[in-house]
Amino acid sequence: MYHFRNDYSEGCHPKVLEALSGVNGEHVIGYGADDYCKSAADLIRNLCQAPNADVQFMVGGTQTNFVTIAALLRPWESVISPTTGHINGHEAGAVEATGHKILQAQVPANGKLTPNRILPIVEACKDEHVTKPRLVYISDATETGGVYTKAELAALYRCCQANDLYLFLDGARLGCAMASVENDLTLADIAALTDAFYIGGTKNGAMMGEALVVTNPELTENFFRMKKQHGAVLAKGWLLGVQFQALLQDGLYFKIARNAVEVAQYLQGGLKNLGIPMMTESTTNQIFPIVPNELLPHLDELCTYEVWGKADKGHTVVRFVTSFASTVKSVDGFLKELKDRT
Amino acid sequence: MYHFRNDYSEGCHPKVLEALSGVNGEHVIGYGADDYCKSAADLIRNLCQAPNADVQFMVGGTQTNFVTIAALLRPWESVISPTTGHINGHEAGAVEATGHKILQAQVPANGKLTPNRILPIVEACKDEHVTKPRLVYISDATETGGVYTKAELAALYRCCQANDLYLFLDGARLGCAMASVENDLTLADIAALTDAFYIGGTKNGAMMGEALVVTNPELTENFFRMKKQHGAVLAKGWLLGVQFQALLQDGLYFKIARNAVEVAQYLQGGLKNLGIPMMTESTTNQIFPIVPNELLPHLDELCTYEVWGKADKGHTVVRFVTSFASTVKSVDGFLKELKDRT
Amino acid sequence: MYHFRNDYSEGCHPKVLEALSGVNGEHVIGYGADDYCKSAADLIRNLCQAPNADVQFMVGGTQTNFVTIAALLRPWESVISPTTGHINGHEAGAVEATGHKILQAQVPANGKLTPNRILPIVEACKDEHVTKPRLVYISDATETGGVYTKAELAALYRCCQANDLYLFLDGARLGCAMASVENDLTLADIAALTDAFYIGGTKNGAMMGEALVVTNPELTENFFRMKKQHGAVLAKGWLLGVQFQALLQDGLYFKIARNAVEVAQYLQGGLKNLGIPMMTESTTNQIFPIVPNELLPHLDELCTYEVWGKADKGHTVVRFVTSFASTVKSVDGFLKELKDRT
Amino acid sequence: MYHFRNDYSEGCHPKVLEALSGVNGEHVIGYGADDYCKSAADLIRNLCQAPNADVQFMVGGTQTNFVTIAALLRPWESVISPTTGHINGHEAGAVEATGHKILQAQVPANGKLTPNRILPIVEACKDEHVTKPRLVYISDATETGGVYTKAELAALYRCCQANDLYLFLDGARLGCAMASVENDLTLADIAALTDAFYIGGTKNGAMMGEALVVTNPELTENFFRMKKQHGAVLAKGWLLGVQFQALLQDGLYFKIARNAVEVAQYLQGGLKNLGIPMMTESTTNQIFPIVPNELLPHLDELCTYEVWGKADKGHTVVRFVTSFASTVKSVDGFLKELKDRT
Repeated sequence: MYHFRNDYSEGCHPKVLEALSGVNGEHVIGYGADDYCKSAADLIRNLCQAPNADVQFMVGGTQTNFVTIAALLRPWESVISPTTGHINGHEAGAVEATGHKILQAQVPANGKLTPNRILPIVEACKDEHVTKPRLVYISDATETGGVYTKAELAALYRCCQANDLYLFLDGARLGCAMASVENDLTLADIAALTDAFYIGGTKNGAMMGEALVVTNPELTENFFRMKKQHGAVLAKGWLLGVQFQALLQDGLYFKIARNAVEVAQYLQGGLKNLGIPMMTESTTNQIFPIVPNELLPHLDELCTYEVWGKADKGHTVVRFVTSFASTVKSVDGFLKELKDRT
Repeated sequence: MYHFRNDYSEGCHPKVLEALSGVNGEHVIGYGADDYCKSAADLIRNLCQAPNADVQFMVGGTQTNFVTIAALLRPWESVISPTTGHINGHEAGAVEATGHKILQAQVPANGKLTPNRILPIVEACKDEHVTKPRLVYISDATETGGVYTKAELAALYRCCQANDLYLFLDGARLGCAMASVENDLTLADIAALTDAFYIGGTKNGAMMGEALVVTNPELTENFFRMKKQHGAVLAKGWLLGVQFQALLQDGLYFKIARNAVEVAQYLQGGLKNLGIPMMTESTTNQIFPIVPNELLPHLDELCTYEVWGKADKGHTVVRFVTSFASTVKSVDGFLKELKDRT
Repeated sequence: MYHFRNDYSEGCHPKVLEALSGVNGEHVIGYGADDYCKSAADLIRNLCQAPNADVQFMVGGTQTNFVTIAALLRPWESVISPTTGHINGHEAGAVEATGHKILQAQVPANGKLTPNRILPIVEACKDEHVTKPRLVYISDATETGGVYTKAELAALYRCCQANDLYLFLDGARLGCAMASVENDLTLADIAALTDAFYIGGTKNGAMMGEALVVTNPELTENFFRMKKQHGAVLAKGWLLGVQFQALLQDGLYFKIARNAVEVAQYLQGGLKNLGIPMMTESTTNQIFPIVPNELLPHLDELCTYEVWGKADKGHTVVRFVTSFASTVKSVDGFLKELKDRT
Repeated sequence: MYHFRNDYSEGCHPKVLEALSGVNGEHVIGYGADDYCKSAADLIRNLCQAPNADVQFMVGGTQTNFVTIAALLRPWESVISPTTGHINGHEAGAVEATGHKILQAQVPANGKLTPNRILPIVEACKDEHVTKPRLVYISDATETGGVYTKAELAALYRCCQANDLYLFLDGARLGCAMASVENDLTLADIAALTDAFYIGGTKNGAMMGEALVVTNPELTENFFRMKKQHGAVLAKGWLLGVQFQALLQDGLYFKIARNAVEVAQYLQGGLKNLGIPMMTESTTNQIFPIVPNELLPHLDELCTYEVWGKADKGHTVVRFVTSFASTVKSVDGFLKELKDRT
């Protein structure tokens, strides 16, 4: 069995496990007030060249999204999100559960938002009988593997600043976005071009954990209480600090992402060589082959994957995702077996 | 330095770490749909003699409390909790953030709720201009180490059933409650005498995790969506199943609790021999010595602990908590050093 | 100045004012527990042939919408609404403020929802990572004057019942919908083909007030508390009962609606005679002329109205609305003056 | 039958009805954007000597309380209220439904809050695991007829300012508080010594309506959207402006309150002459006689009133309230008939 289900289907990278094991016997203060979290936060501030940024560790992506969004907004304010944004489509109404409407912006297949999609929403909301849009939510990479360039992010941020909007970037798959050939953003760029973003651990080698970076100084007050109120304070908080330290101190985070992207791209190339087209030309660790329906039973036998949707009557879009545990060798094996069956 | 700060200040019990390490290389389906979670849930249903119970794993106590409470209630319904209940005093308004009022019942120093504290609240709320109390929240052990007997829990449950109230038991420290000499409850008793309760992992040897057991069949629908909406679905959900399996399959959970309680009781006895009285006679892993204020600087040098409150002008109540990592030997060392200073 | 701004721009119908004045000196019990509310509720149950329906009076439409929706839903449940639905576009996120997501269904220009728009949403939401749709919101008439037929409403209700969905009908403009030539629904039909709906007073001759009719017996418990919690209990509640009694006991409600619709239709005919086309062929009291932009300054001088949107570069859609206070005579005057200017 | 049930049991003062009738035929812009609301707001700003205050009209007290409180607070912030405060005891969890905890301060029988009750709560909440208190709620008069002096209100406001707390005064019965002999506050004083307060109309001669005055300039942004989101924007908003104009332009508001207070005080004196003691010595329009239980059937025959609570085994506290419609003459009649029966 080959595994392409997703990038959170294995435990953690062995070096992360080693780091966790290494501190297991220690007695540490709880709730993230420990030195591991402090060091990891410092490391992140350095990488982001954002000495005054507030760094907050949380356990998962949905949690980080809704806690951050709800912390930034007043009750009458709303969020602009791509229709395909994770908060809009896969988080069971988590943002709305905090009382805030999501205003949906139509986006192209790559999932990337642009100022021209934002402005008409802002315009329509000048009417006081509707909510006030106050935050733009994007993710990098997007749900469909779209990767923002520096020029694109800068344009979005300018648009946000001109329209009294915060820009919040969901970085659940930030590692793989940054490992994409399309990427020209550094962490420092992202910190400079957003009000808040997070460095996703869960999908990039951590056991669990996301590191939120809040660069807008207006937004950092009382974040601990906000996290606590939403069950987002891990009692043994140092576990998150230890992991991010392990991931970030020697570039392991980026190495993991490079591997995932390389293997995915290798797989994408191999599938195309077998005559299988792609829904969208992804440069990240997620690829979206369009396969004939009669291939699905073979895939079911060969590998784990997810069905993304119907392409047409006879074809299905599937999603293959790679992780730190994926190897070129296993792709070779998979492609060979697949070829034998087609 | 001796450590009595709390029971979530070390990583996890070595056997739990071993279990987590053992599955780290595997490829497992996410979000708790895996076989480890299924096995752990079955194990729990067996221990509880509750074959139809719904078992839900979550990451932490505050999360488990507010997600469960909000899942059970309609908007106009409220919670009866001891004034000293964790949801009322230490969760940053998490229950209220889901829209529900907490009606406070005064309780004695041991933190235990009794029907005679519930009935006047129910009576006062017959007025339709106030919320309808619909759930009683208790914890076992309580915040101050109180332990419910079977007779007490049965009386509470009868009172709840007679008054259209759910009974929800916060078991963050259930292990130590059950290891107390005062306890005569089995897991099966607790399952039979509540609508929902949880078996706390975080404070009893797990890296993180609580196992919610919902025995009332009316209450189990759509719980996954509810968890997802509140960021309470761990992506690598099997990590929780693996831990509870490790804790529960061979009685490790109870062994850990017994150790913590024994060491705490040994410490309590030793302190009393030194002439230090207790705020309340705890039989669990939390003890509450009343110390002269001039002893505090010595304690600061000798150990970690928490200040619980002022006793009188010259005395302070402190809290000492033990865990799986605590030993009688270290208590001996601590008591000896303490004696030398007093 | 002629007035076509909307149907809530005058006080109340003289007979309603008379009724309010008539009871002004009386001493009445508050919060809707009075005999006027009881009589009005009985009257409504009779008209609806729904002897067991629960009737709840509230002050305004937004209030009635969100209080009812939030009373019916559990936290993880969501609402299917036409994209153009009032709750989605003109209520400042009131539904989301109660924690529930609105799932938007695209609808044609008449604003009417059909089962084929609902089913794909239900299908997509079988994924447990998204909310569970549980209620369908429609309005009759719609925002653009669309009117449901009995066959259409029956089809919607069957679709809802087959898919575990409540059907809730916003009747803010129900009077004018029922006065439309397209309508073949009676109040009894509407009561039989929805789980809840309301008879709008504010836009049909009342000073303020909406009468919610809940026919699904599962849904009527504790509604008073729900209203109270959301500030929807009028202290002098009998004021609503008195008004609905005045409106409904002798058919005044329907007479008002007929007048509004007749005058609007007369106006629509007159404008078409002047060569002005309509965005949609409304049969209610709202009409949507498409006027050349150069006509707008003339309209501004002649009448009150609202700009609905841009039609094309040179044309604007405007909205004219009539009420109990509108007369054919004033339309004649308006059309004459308009003709003189064009 | 004599009427002492409450001060919202009659319609409106005849002059208010006259004013409403006088504008009934007019065509007015909706949602409070009209000139009547503007004039009434100007009138209020003048009376308050607060030229920059924001004035917002809402329909009822519960609505004004929770909309204002929720508009001022961030999610992690909470409200300090007397245990007996209306928001804590009689509004069905309306504040909690917006996500905010109420921290209860014990107060004496007169219901008045003092800095020494606030400070320990602030102190206890320095712990980041609890909510941050950010607003103090008081009412003048209190639920039991307590009336704040200028010195008391100034002390509270200083305490609030020193502790990062807003002071919000519920003025549902402000008229009668100001008509009390204990009162030395002007509207200008109240405006200067609070961040926001409201002038209650419903309980002082209006058909419905409360006028919120927000003097803290930080707090006035986007209040319309907030009101709209909570169903607190009356479509025919001018009805509120017209009423407050009628009440305030010639001092009618204060005249109504003086009458209510005088009649209540006259009644209190008369009852004391009959040997009936009071639970608290009220100087407002609410009085709280302690009557022998055997008197209750007589009261039931003679008048409307409310049972406030049990005094002791043989005695009950009742509440008598007077309004603009109460007269000394009817009190004389009532006292005579009561005397005949005792």
